[in-house]
Amino acid sequence: MFNDVLSVISVGVATLDEGPAGGGAALMRLDWQPAGDASAELAWRLAQLAGDKDDPACFGSGIDRANLEAVNRVIGAEPAWVDVALHAREVWPDLGRTLLHAGPPIGWEKMCGPMRGAVIGAILYEGWASSPEHAEALARRGEVAFAPCHEHGAVGPMSGIISPSMPLVAVRNRTAGNLAWAPFMESGGRETLRFGAYSQPVLDHLRWIENTVAPTLQAVVRGAPDGLALKPIIAQALHMGDDLHNRNTAASLILLRWVACELARSGLDSATAAAVLKMIRQDDMFFLSLSMAACKSTMDAAHGVPNSSMVTAMARNGVEVGIRVSGLGERWFTGPAEVPKGLYLPGFTEADANPDIGDSAITETAGLGAFAMAAAPAMVQFVGGTPADALRYSTEMKQIAIARNPGFTLPALDFVGAPVGIDVRRVLDENSRPVINTATAHREPGKGIIGAGIVRAPLACFTSALHALCDQPHAANPAADSAMQASHSGARS
Amino acid sequence: MFNDVLSVISVGVATLDEGPAGGGAALMRLDWQPAGDASAELAWRLAQLAGDKDDPACFGSGIDRANLEAVNRVIGAEPAWVDVALHAREVWPDLGRTLLHAGPPIGWEKMCGPMRGAVIGAILYEGWASSPEHAEALARRGEVAFAPCHEHGAVGPMSGIISPSMPLVAVRNRTAGNLAWAPFMESGGRETLRFGAYSQPVLDHLRWIENTVAPTLQAVVRGAPDGLALKPIIAQALHMGDDLHNRNTAASLILLRWVACELARSGLDSATAAAVLKMIRQDDMFFLSLSMAACKSTMDAAHGVPNSSMVTAMARNGVEVGIRVSGLGERWFTGPAEVPKGLYLPGFTEADANPDIGDSAITETAGLGAFAMAAAPAMVQFVGGTPADALRYSTEMKQIAIARNPGFTLPALDFVGAPVGIDVRRVLDENSRPVINTATAHREPGKGIIGAGIVRAPLACFTSALHALCDQPHAANPAADSAMQASHSGARS
Repeated sequence: MFNDVLSVISVGVATLDEGPAGGGAALMRLDWQPAGDASAELAWRLAQLAGDKDDPACFGSGIDRANLEAVNRVIGAEPAWVDVALHAREVWPDLGRTLLHAGPPIGWEKMCGPMRGAVIGAILYEGWASSPEHAEALARRGEVAFAPCHEHGAVGPMSGIISPSMPLVAVRNRTAGNLAWAPFMESGGRETLRFGAYSQPVLDHLRWIENTVAPTLQAVVRGAPDGLALKPIIAQALHMGDDLHNRNTAASLILLRWVACELARSGLDSATAAAVLKMIRQDDMFFLSLSMAACKSTMDAAHGVPNSSMVTAMARNGVEVGIRVSGLGERWFTGPAEVPKGLYLPGFTEADANPDIGDSAITETAGLGAFAMAAAPAMVQFVGGTPADALRYSTEMKQIAIARNPGFTLPALDFVGAPVGIDVRRVLDENSRPVINTATAHREPGKGIIGAGIVRAPLACFTSALHALCDQPHAANPAADSAMQASHSGARS
Repeated sequence: MFNDVLSVISVGVATLDEGPAGGGAALMRLDWQPAGDASAELAWRLAQLAGDKDDPACFGSGIDRANLEAVNRVIGAEPAWVDVALHAREVWPDLGRTLLHAGPPIGWEKMCGPMRGAVIGAILYEGWASSPEHAEALARRGEVAFAPCHEHGAVGPMSGIISPSMPLVAVRNRTAGNLAWAPFMESGGRETLRFGAYSQPVLDHLRWIENTVAPTLQAVVRGAPDGLALKPIIAQALHMGDDLHNRNTAASLILLRWVACELARSGLDSATAAAVLKMIRQDDMFFLSLSMAACKSTMDAAHGVPNSSMVTAMARNGVEVGIRVSGLGERWFTGPAEVPKGLYLPGFTEADANPDIGDSAITETAGLGAFAMAAAPAMVQFVGGTPADALRYSTEMKQIAIARNPGFTLPALDFVGAPVGIDVRRVLDENSRPVINTATAHREPGKGIIGAGIVRAPLACFTSALHALCDQPHAANPAADSAMQASHSGARS
């Protein structure tokens, strides 16, 4: 059988190559790994869900069509900054003693240090307790409720704590009409609630944002008949070195320009105007609130497309990463959060780092952040790596993305559209987990930012989502289903 | 002689290769061209001026040392916006009926269309004539004098006309102490004097700049104790997609941020503040005045280094390009201006284009503009070409540059410093003429911008400068000379 000259294609364990290669066979290694967690069941289910363009009755093709619908809602979104809510309780009157937090659901017992610190700070801020010890006791005894920002149409950076008195920016997706909310950046101080600090200056600064910044910016945004369209700002900022997650320098400048011109036009008190402009000026990340809310309003409109395997939320609570999938309702699919790899401020190391935290990965979910990192070569000075890495992330992420966004182009890659819309199937099939640009928090409360880096969402989120896609009752041919539904509703009318 | 196997290195005309190659010789082509205009005399003189690191007595080594001094003055410059002059006549009290213009010296008879239009407009603006016909007659009869901006420590974009009533920005190079001047950008209208328009709206807009913008910005800049340091803005803008010549989007935003904060802080009339901010907001090129003045204050400080072959000015009057060289005094070395290659606005072609015009190539002279184009990939949408071309220009210009500027880094090229300081010798030796990013003017007055593109300075500037370097009495060993001078002055004291 082996008397002729052998030509061998090798797949898998490299040491097995030695036999045929030693025997003089022509050898070609195929760069292949089993999908996802390498289980046979996963591979089989993945094959079941694979699209087939030639066979529209194939279930996978139904997913492809659903994903096209979902991603087109993302690409077609028109987020605009339309309002400021002076207090979260005006947005959600039933909030009571609930604190919203970043990432998938989590209770006090499992919360990481920075999130616990932020919870204590928020309780003190609301006056529900008069000391950190009392605040902690309240939280431990379950006298404060917790819920994810994401389940309230909101997103919060880092610990992402939103308490009833905090002001929020409101972004409307004009295409679908839905609203999304995010807290203001705590620009100005190194100590911030979102990193778990709760000292008096932190609370005083939050109060100043509530009482001065929010009303001023509310007047500005309400004074502009159509609000501020965010899509053109994001598109322009991508041509000016931002990724709109870890770098918002250009977008913050464009925002300040608009605010400054509107403030001057409004004739508002100039001392207040000067103070608000100074705060925005001090923070090159000020735009992140609007970037996140824009992405949330975009992705919420793409949620709920039956059969779609597109990720509509990717969020971290500092312990777990959770994703939500367009065709899988309100469920979270979670996995353990990893520690970002990157650069540390002097005096800190990976041992000090909290695992990945914050709702800001909504930017990657919407095709910005690390997906658009080719736009932001200068950011590698912040997160580590080289400009070539920045190009590589944007290129790799196309493998797991459903489309390219023609509205968000990447100059350094010859103006190709940024990859957009994470397909759960492709993450597993390509063994390529979504890349996320992120700030790194100290694992203890209140120690603030200690660095920045790159992290990937855990595989477990995607394997469990894939099983859920397989397990749910699905239409082999959604087009026929819609026709059936149409005839049913016709019968009712 | 030719019985053995031949190995041939071929230099020059490729058709001569056919003989040896046909005879079976191993052939290697050397990619070489004769230097500059290919004359034997030029090659000989170039060889005379070549540096020799091992022989400090070699004249070329003296040039190398002089160039190091000159380029270090460029790298060490600290330009800051320190003032606004409300009228040019306050800066130069002897101006009388002189109009300053872009580029090397030129009289009315030889001026191109856009410059003639701007001259007519400036005469009307000054009230020296009451009609365009009268203004033209005045200029033709020599009743108006002309002089280069560059000879007055000033730089003007496009036709670069500065008349006695026009306001100017003042930039001080804090390292050397010298000042440089530039007129304000005529932000807001498509018709502008600098492109040769002289309609009533153009003159009214200039008057508004003189009476409203200039006093407002004078108050702002005088209100800031140290003015506005421009080097950090330029460095940051290079990380945000600007080249600081044809793209000033980020720098203009950073400038607006500063002006807005200072205006709010100053409590100046908010209607005026709003109008001035609106003007800056409308023009992504507003910063160009400051970029040019910063570069002029930088390069003037590097002028006058004995023996230096570094170019300190490169300017175009729409007919000729002229350069000045650090070690060659006030002389201009000129050559014919070329028509930029690039993109045209709809309805226009190269046939409509005026040859290269404006003092704005002071940015390339100082190591920005096309020399830093790797920073500005998005600009190829304006000037044509691809992002790879942008990288290529910055790489090629290193061949003719004396150094890299560690303060101005290029993210896309792994944060290497932008090439800086054009060496006349290297331009000829490498046959690589300096690249310039530029706007393209219509060849008729008042038709404005019709496109943008890339152009190169003509070789003739550099060949004549090289001959001048050879012809002037020079020190074979400037170090010895200085020692001699020191002993002489010692004798006198």
